[in-house]
Amino acid sequence: MDQLKQKILTEGRVKDANILIVDSFLNHQLDIPLMDAMGREFAKYFNARGVNKILTIEASGIAVAAFTARYFEAPVLFARKTPTLTAIEDKYTAEVYSFTKQVSNRVFVSRRYLTPEDNVLVIDDFLAHGQALLGLAEIVRQAGATLVGAGIVIEKGFQKGGGLVREAGIDLLSLARIKSMEPGRVEFF
Amino acid sequence: MDQLKQKILTEGRVKDANILIVDSFLNHQLDIPLMDAMGREFAKYFNARGVNKILTIEASGIAVAAFTARYFEAPVLFARKTPTLTAIEDKYTAEVYSFTKQVSNRVFVSRRYLTPEDNVLVIDDFLAHGQALLGLAEIVRQAGATLVGAGIVIEKGFQKGGGLVREAGIDLLSLARIKSMEPGRVEFF
Repeated sequence: MDQLKQKILTEGRVKDANILIVDSFLNHQLDIPLMDAMGREFAKYFNARGVNKILTIEASGIAVAAFTARYFEAPVLFARKTPTLTAIEDKYTAEVYSFTKQVSNRVFVSRRYLTPEDNVLVIDDFLAHGQALLGLAEIVRQAGATLVGAGIVIEKGFQKGGGLVREAGIDLLSLARIKSMEPGRVEFF
Repeated sequence: MDQLKQKILTEGRVKDANILIVDSFLNHQLDIPLMDAMGREFAKYFNARGVNKILTIEASGIAVAAFTARYFEAPVLFARKTPTLTAIEDKYTAEVYSFTKQVSNRVFVSRRYLTPEDNVLVIDDFLAHGQALLGLAEIVRQAGATLVGAGIVIEKGFQKGGGLVREAGIDLLSLARIKSMEPGRVEFF
């Protein structure tokens, strides 16, 4: 997606060869017309596949998931990381290790909102090691729901996540796939 | 806002007199047409006040903030709770105690994205003790930006947050203001 790649080239900042900071439009500040355009791209690709639920994980995936959901006229369901007093007793869970945050989170989704009748599109902001996406796929499996595919904003194509996800037979659309990066330079596939 | 109040009455569940669970449309699953309608309500009220930035806090505020931002053609900025490898060095911070989660979080916003030129509308899902909202107002103050007002989805009007926020001179619009609640019954102002 050219608009996204341009945005990464002009506003992204690479730190330490492995970290891409895109907090001007995706991870901290949100560029709303871009979120909407990305939602439209996902909808175009996964169109006519009966998607009735968008699944993401808090927090950076929520906005793009919400704009994707508009095109499918479907609700968003976001997996939660933190236990609260309002936490749901009856839930699906998966263990997700975040290499960026260097912590392991048990994420959960209420059984109320994911059932065998659901056709689920997973949306997330980044794909690197694939842990979050595979965790969400595991939750879809636990629910007996159908995983239609996964839409990713930025795939770090030089890390192993994309391969793991494709080997698992998940139909994956990444809007920008980075081949290599270093401070001052980002190259796409 | 009638549509929202109806939704709370039909789908909300009150636990222990103090906890309102609205995870079917606001805190876990997101009802997208409702998010959009709420954004329109906020835009109608805070219209023509030069709002150029929507500030919220991860995670449940992000979707309604994003749909509000569409009507202002403004970006969303969401305060972050967790430090990451991509964390911004140069930031505004505020201490926010969550009574729901029973933890204190230091939330932060990058100085890059909030400046004295900004006219900020704060959006959040719940107002109870007012800690999150007053923390965000403090961040706006640190930035030297102008706080136009605050839009809240659900105000627990029987707790002290609304009073604190109004006494601080913040123009507050709550789309549903709960007068009292107990399991099986919710009453609005």
